[in-house]
Amino acid sequence: MAYPNFFDENQRLIEAALERLLPSAGTTPATIHQAMRYSVFAGGKRIRPMLCMEASRIFSAETSAAVESGCAIEFIHTYSLIHDDLPALDNDDLRRGKPTCHKQFNEATAILAGDALLTLSFEVLSRIPSDAARCVQVIREVSSAAGTRDGMVGGQVADIEAERKPVNAETLAYIHRSKTAALIRGSVIAGTICGGGTPDDVERLRRFGDNIGWAFQVVDDILDVEESSAALGKTAGKDQAQQKATYPALFGLQKSREFATELATKALDELAVYGDRAARLRELAEFLVLRRA
Amino acid sequence: MAYPNFFDENQRLIEAALERLLPSAGTTPATIHQAMRYSVFAGGKRIRPMLCMEASRIFSAETSAAVESGCAIEFIHTYSLIHDDLPALDNDDLRRGKPTCHKQFNEATAILAGDALLTLSFEVLSRIPSDAARCVQVIREVSSAAGTRDGMVGGQVADIEAERKPVNAETLAYIHRSKTAALIRGSVIAGTICGGGTPDDVERLRRFGDNIGWAFQVVDDILDVEESSAALGKTAGKDQAQQKATYPALFGLQKSREFATELATKALDELAVYGDRAARLRELAEFLVLRRA
Repeated sequence: MAYPNFFDENQRLIEAALERLLPSAGTTPATIHQAMRYSVFAGGKRIRPMLCMEASRIFSAETSAAVESGCAIEFIHTYSLIHDDLPALDNDDLRRGKPTCHKQFNEATAILAGDALLTLSFEVLSRIPSDAARCVQVIREVSSAAGTRDGMVGGQVADIEAERKPVNAETLAYIHRSKTAALIRGSVIAGTICGGGTPDDVERLRRFGDNIGWAFQVVDDILDVEESSAALGKTAGKDQAQQKATYPALFGLQKSREFATELATKALDELAVYGDRAARLRELAEFLVLRRA
Repeated sequence: MAYPNFFDENQRLIEAALERLLPSAGTTPATIHQAMRYSVFAGGKRIRPMLCMEASRIFSAETSAAVESGCAIEFIHTYSLIHDDLPALDNDDLRRGKPTCHKQFNEATAILAGDALLTLSFEVLSRIPSDAARCVQVIREVSSAAGTRDGMVGGQVADIEAERKPVNAETLAYIHRSKTAALIRGSVIAGTICGGGTPDDVERLRRFGDNIGWAFQVVDDILDVEESSAALGKTAGKDQAQQKATYPALFGLQKSREFATELATKALDELAVYGDRAARLRELAEFLVLRRA
């Protein structure tokens, strides 16, 4: 699957905004800003900001509020990776082929850099170039998506609790939808609000985001099994080694692939009503579930 | 110094709001909600919510938005204590005479409970019973006060970097004003905004909050030297053991007391213009800098 042709252009816009929104490496206290920048700029396809931008574009040509909201969500995503990698959690030394934040700096700095990125995220969201009502609505959606009730932290906790235990399909669905899908759904909804979508649009894109985010995590689990360490830049097969709950472990690769396709189809069906206005979001979604790392 | 006579009544309102705003201990995933509740209800005088309420009361009799904003700030304060106590940071086993969060649960849960409280704080702030414009302004002030640029996390980083090093008065001022005064100032400003204060009021209360918050930290350092372990419910004299930068260490107890009084006087002077409308905030401020643990 080829990258969408707007991918590079979007990435440039996003990288420039991330650069602008993060405190410079020289700002006091320097260590923490260096650690925040180290992890934000350690790579990553910027999928969440991109989904935010392209959801916004269905409703408006002007995407600057969506770019900034997307960057704020990218900060939340980055903080979650930094904390996930800590010795007390997944204890990972490498992330995208580079030392993890606590390896490059130290544990205290990594904990505080994660805290700082989460805090900065809401500061950025409170200053997006939009009106106050949209701004508050975006903050509600994003904070809820990142929280404990069917949100990202809730999914992380459930994921940890499920390690080395038999897990049924229901628990696995809860983990995937909370840990990964929630923030992806939050990105899509933030974009919809920034673009000026109606409450009906928000609910439609919520279903789209939930299903595409879920499909994304199923594909991620499939890739973990299929790909070699080198290609992924992280320790592949790690899910299995940690006895993490995954779809391939529960249902096998073939069934998992079918399930991912089913979720993706459901997601894309929601976009039909927008016709060509959703062409780019559709292309991005297809790329996400057909990707190879 | 006696507790202000409105102290108990305020505390009841605040405890009830905290109870209502936190997910119940039975909500999935239960562990994280138990850990969040454990730390929030581990004691504490609720100084930040109280400052928020009493700042609001200068401008309006209706304080429900201020109570909820104050509780959101209390979540931020609690998350900062949970993360501060972690082995990689201050490595504290006791907090207010009870096992710290990572001792009662485990490190992973403590890290995630802190993350969850910080996230919940902004969810709560995005739903305070006020209009969108005030809501966004409160989120801007609170996120900035909790962040790295002259905010709480910045102060924590500077504090860690200053351990076991000679520290001058300028660095010490930066640490105190960022680590402690910023969030106290944020509480006062949040209350001012919720109550409907003008931009001039916000700036006046900002100066009040900065000085009273700074005085509060100087008094805290004095108490750490003066009081016994038992009275404080934490390991007293710990600052000295860790060679933390403090006013008593740099200037001695007498000079530190004089400095705290000077800051408190400066703070209280800002309230003069409000006359009796600020009587309760004034009484609370005096209590904070004359307190004994």
